[in-house]
Amino acid sequence: MIRVGIFGASGYTGIELVKILARHPHARIQFATSDSYVGQKLSDVFACHYDIPLIAHDAAPLDAIDVAILALPHGVSAEYAQRVFDAGARVIDLSADLRLRDPVAYKKWYGQEHHAPTLLPHAVYGLPELYRARIKDARLIANPGCYPTSVILGLAPLWRAGATETTVIVDAKSGVSGAGRKPTLTVHFCEVNENLAPYNIGRVHRHLAEMEQELQAIHPRASLVFSPHLLPVTRGILSTMYVRLNAGWDEARLRDLYHQTYANEPFVKILPRGHIATLAHSVNTNYCTLSLHYLADVQQAIICSSIDNLIKGASGQAVQNMNVMFGLDETLGLV
Amino acid sequence: MIRVGIFGASGYTGIELVKILARHPHARIQFATSDSYVGQKLSDVFACHYDIPLIAHDAAPLDAIDVAILALPHGVSAEYAQRVFDAGARVIDLSADLRLRDPVAYKKWYGQEHHAPTLLPHAVYGLPELYRARIKDARLIANPGCYPTSVILGLAPLWRAGATETTVIVDAKSGVSGAGRKPTLTVHFCEVNENLAPYNIGRVHRHLAEMEQELQAIHPRASLVFSPHLLPVTRGILSTMYVRLNAGWDEARLRDLYHQTYANEPFVKILPRGHIATLAHSVNTNYCTLSLHYLADVQQAIICSSIDNLIKGASGQAVQNMNVMFGLDETLGLV
Amino acid sequence: MIRVGIFGASGYTGIELVKILARHPHARIQFATSDSYVGQKLSDVFACHYDIPLIAHDAAPLDAIDVAILALPHGVSAEYAQRVFDAGARVIDLSADLRLRDPVAYKKWYGQEHHAPTLLPHAVYGLPELYRARIKDARLIANPGCYPTSVILGLAPLWRAGATETTVIVDAKSGVSGAGRKPTLTVHFCEVNENLAPYNIGRVHRHLAEMEQELQAIHPRASLVFSPHLLPVTRGILSTMYVRLNAGWDEARLRDLYHQTYANEPFVKILPRGHIATLAHSVNTNYCTLSLHYLADVQQAIICSSIDNLIKGASGQAVQNMNVMFGLDETLGLV
Amino acid sequence: MIRVGIFGASGYTGIELVKILARHPHARIQFATSDSYVGQKLSDVFACHYDIPLIAHDAAPLDAIDVAILALPHGVSAEYAQRVFDAGARVIDLSADLRLRDPVAYKKWYGQEHHAPTLLPHAVYGLPELYRARIKDARLIANPGCYPTSVILGLAPLWRAGATETTVIVDAKSGVSGAGRKPTLTVHFCEVNENLAPYNIGRVHRHLAEMEQELQAIHPRASLVFSPHLLPVTRGILSTMYVRLNAGWDEARLRDLYHQTYANEPFVKILPRGHIATLAHSVNTNYCTLSLHYLADVQQAIICSSIDNLIKGASGQAVQNMNVMFGLDETLGLV
Repeated sequence: MIRVGIFGASGYTGIELVKILARHPHARIQFATSDSYVGQKLSDVFACHYDIPLIAHDAAPLDAIDVAILALPHGVSAEYAQRVFDAGARVIDLSADLRLRDPVAYKKWYGQEHHAPTLLPHAVYGLPELYRARIKDARLIANPGCYPTSVILGLAPLWRAGATETTVIVDAKSGVSGAGRKPTLTVHFCEVNENLAPYNIGRVHRHLAEMEQELQAIHPRASLVFSPHLLPVTRGILSTMYVRLNAGWDEARLRDLYHQTYANEPFVKILPRGHIATLAHSVNTNYCTLSLHYLADVQQAIICSSIDNLIKGASGQAVQNMNVMFGLDETLGLV
Repeated sequence: MIRVGIFGASGYTGIELVKILARHPHARIQFATSDSYVGQKLSDVFACHYDIPLIAHDAAPLDAIDVAILALPHGVSAEYAQRVFDAGARVIDLSADLRLRDPVAYKKWYGQEHHAPTLLPHAVYGLPELYRARIKDARLIANPGCYPTSVILGLAPLWRAGATETTVIVDAKSGVSGAGRKPTLTVHFCEVNENLAPYNIGRVHRHLAEMEQELQAIHPRASLVFSPHLLPVTRGILSTMYVRLNAGWDEARLRDLYHQTYANEPFVKILPRGHIATLAHSVNTNYCTLSLHYLADVQQAIICSSIDNLIKGASGQAVQNMNVMFGLDETLGLV
Repeated sequence: MIRVGIFGASGYTGIELVKILARHPHARIQFATSDSYVGQKLSDVFACHYDIPLIAHDAAPLDAIDVAILALPHGVSAEYAQRVFDAGARVIDLSADLRLRDPVAYKKWYGQEHHAPTLLPHAVYGLPELYRARIKDARLIANPGCYPTSVILGLAPLWRAGATETTVIVDAKSGVSGAGRKPTLTVHFCEVNENLAPYNIGRVHRHLAEMEQELQAIHPRASLVFSPHLLPVTRGILSTMYVRLNAGWDEARLRDLYHQTYANEPFVKILPRGHIATLAHSVNTNYCTLSLHYLADVQQAIICSSIDNLIKGASGQAVQNMNVMFGLDETLGLV
Repeated sequence: MIRVGIFGASGYTGIELVKILARHPHARIQFATSDSYVGQKLSDVFACHYDIPLIAHDAAPLDAIDVAILALPHGVSAEYAQRVFDAGARVIDLSADLRLRDPVAYKKWYGQEHHAPTLLPHAVYGLPELYRARIKDARLIANPGCYPTSVILGLAPLWRAGATETTVIVDAKSGVSGAGRKPTLTVHFCEVNENLAPYNIGRVHRHLAEMEQELQAIHPRASLVFSPHLLPVTRGILSTMYVRLNAGWDEARLRDLYHQTYANEPFVKILPRGHIATLAHSVNTNYCTLSLHYLADVQQAIICSSIDNLIKGASGQAVQNMNVMFGLDETLGLV
């Protein structure tokens, strides 16, 4: 039985972790921490029936766990990653703190000094479809961002195959839970409902750095225009991606590429010709659903990629990583 | 041209006032105030195209207006009502501050001393269907609450006619804009969406005091059980009301009563037999829509009453009152 | 391994059954039938990744299953219940066909002759909290309706204890999936969204017959006024119930009653004092969540009861019944 | 007083026309027709209070009107356009039947012969911002499609100025009312809610033909990739458009271009730098809201364009055209 400590259980990724782990046959929640709700139970904080007590971050017994999953804000997370790491348990960090390999880039995009730069060389980017072998032995996992999960899984095959040379347009749409549980005007029901709001469009969203880092590790000239939009739904991300293809690529070759790339992946699903990926294909699951569309007359491809931002885009992927790290069936708790 | 000053234009009732007054042929917005957004324009604060500057409450030129409409929080509002009153302009107050005639009741329900108790004798409860004659000459209008508007219009005929003796069950459902624009966890999109949440049920919601005050002015034994629910919609209130009828009442008598009561009312609509009032009948309008349902075998009536909480339940009713006060066609700007 | 046949897999309760059974450790879907989509796969019919072929109802191999779960329209369902019964497998029927014990009542409420009246004496009403012992040995289960599940679990303790004498007001609100997947104007997105619509209010909804049948089996004078409302959400039912209490009842006694009644029930949750049941407490789970509210000054109770209409109100309860019938842990596949 | 006949009042564009005309000071609804609801009133068909009788299309007194507004399905509409034209009244056709100037293109995209090809030379494309002068004297108006209105207003300035040479990516998102009121599985609440579904992506949506026709009239090499998505909202379209700019274009020049182009347009609003167009800027108004974003490092522009699909994208634009045709203030009834 893997003993799991959850840091930051009172946010949306935290409660999602609890739900997943509650039915995981080989994991047990050892403790759950919170910043604002110490002394309460999870069932006081969410409309749920998990009577799990919430303890202070600093009261967490680090020697009682095999792995800590950190669902903390960036900036805060690195500090606890360091503590758990030093105490000898493994770490899966859902924040952005361990994702950018370069602390200078971190400072540029997150506006603050990195709190634990010496951890960065130990961190593995936790996208099993790209880094499974390294995840197996990792002590520190940088769990990918939600947008990056949908985008990288959708584009990595193309760049790896050298199928495109030019900047890819990514028009992404996300549900509101991606913004976290802190009340702000942006997530007020009346501001979101019956609305659709682009934000941070172009080349300014923080996830751009993470996506280009990973895609450039595959192909040095990979670049994106990235336009996120806030959708009036609770969960899910759909990324619609527009790719100019090099000569020699056609629909059959495109489909072959993706089917071969993901043939053995339990959580990447490629839709058959004529089907289009929607949010509904992936919401409430750990799947990334991809659909492929080839436009012959303009020699372009459109790749649609959907995930549940709280599952494959956060807590589900964390558990998938945990399963890999502990040598379990990768799908435990997730199907 | 009536010169109107809006206090508190940066909330949901404030922007609604602006929308209504912008197409009112005989009113002009003289100024609009805000607490948090002074120096900005309304189009900076809402996704709209009203480039109206927002000034501080205290910077408002009270001698430049014929009427002030106050869309301020209770507690704050009484103070500005007093100032405008003293300056000689008329006041329509959308807050609860002038609604309860008894300052002791105010303290009990609102948890604070009343800030301007000497105003109370001048205030008229601004429900034109009950108090039109007095509104005409009023200097101070206590604009009714949203729930009370739907409930009083739905029940007043029954109590006036002596059709019931017992506590009426009011099961009310409201859109989120009724909670105001201040960000709280309660109005976070992810907490409201795909949810329905009863709150303050029974006999504890502040609007109960206002409703029983007005209904007991009609029949001394009027009483309610009142259960509000937060609906995942932006606008609208539907109150479903369960009334045990006295002997002698049947469907025909019930329908006659309501048709006679509201025969000349421009903004109360009684649906024909077989139709049921829904939110959609009233949202984005100044109508209160009523449907009447008689249950012979249990000698009960169900009255369904819907309004738009921001229009008939707040800003539309304020303009209706303004029209009455200034001798205009009551429907100007509202149809 | 229990071999399960699903009749009517292409509706909302059908796909929900598939989701639940897909992770049930001791059940296997043997076949899935459909009326409109024969020859297609479930993943052609829903945005999902279940590549289960859909066969015609009449092509189902009845000798290959231990139990059939029927997610068919009423009227149609009785016929297949009969066939499966005759073939020797057990039957869990989600339709209304086996719920009313009296075929005359069936004709009155459903407007047609019963297709298999000789089955009725064999049918057990599948509410485990009331009939667990009989379910264990039943060959035919009439799976309760969604509204009745929420209402009966909320009210049975009161009538059994003799705590009330008078007609109970039930103001119920349901998500749209309760109306089924057939496209009609009633379920058109633009008609439902931003709306709340009462329907069949008073004493005319078909579920009234089922609720009064079961409650009168507990207390002969049990009666209801029942007002359903269509909510702009996909899933969930919340019933707000208003009960006049007999003398001698107070909050402590009320809470004791419910806690004792449901002490050992895995899927009934009673919220502590000060908490109110919302949809969110139960959606996506097999729980029925109850909250109890006592109004001393009017000697009334308000009982709020929420369920997920597709899970505890349909497919989850079916699997709960199946677990009971086959001697398994009642919670398998459901937590 | 302009006498208006509405053909097809029982759809979403029809009821919107009624709402707009009901407060138009110089127009009067002379009759309203319906196919399915003849003999009923509009208030029987929608949750509204317009007691306007619905007559059969063929019963419409064509000599009693100055203008007919046709809110009919394509294919059907051409026939009634012909009849009204022959009877001497002016026609504003909301269908696609008069939009494509080439009946061969019509057959290709709409799969049927054109019913009234001799009308086409008389039809003016009713986008006042492009064709105001010709609309003034037109007898037949082809009211633009909803997507085309948002896209053409957003891109016409760029192509007219020769600012781009390459295929523009248009990622468009529409509310459900654009799909009409006919119940289908696509618009079932449970299929749309909490979902986002791309459809007809690439170069296959019928509106592509209309958009390219109009943009190629400006610049012969104009071309688009067009990907519509179905949003879980009732109203509104947001088009996010990605344009590679020619050398010599920068942010200042881009902003100047749009400000000059639309300086005198009452219904096109260009947001200031730092603001992004959202659905909320335009829903429930006749505005098209544009925001301009320049990406220096990739020499691209992103243009966001929002409209209300039922107003500026249909019925509001129809009334705007009517105002132009009859020499009225273009904004009457629309602000």
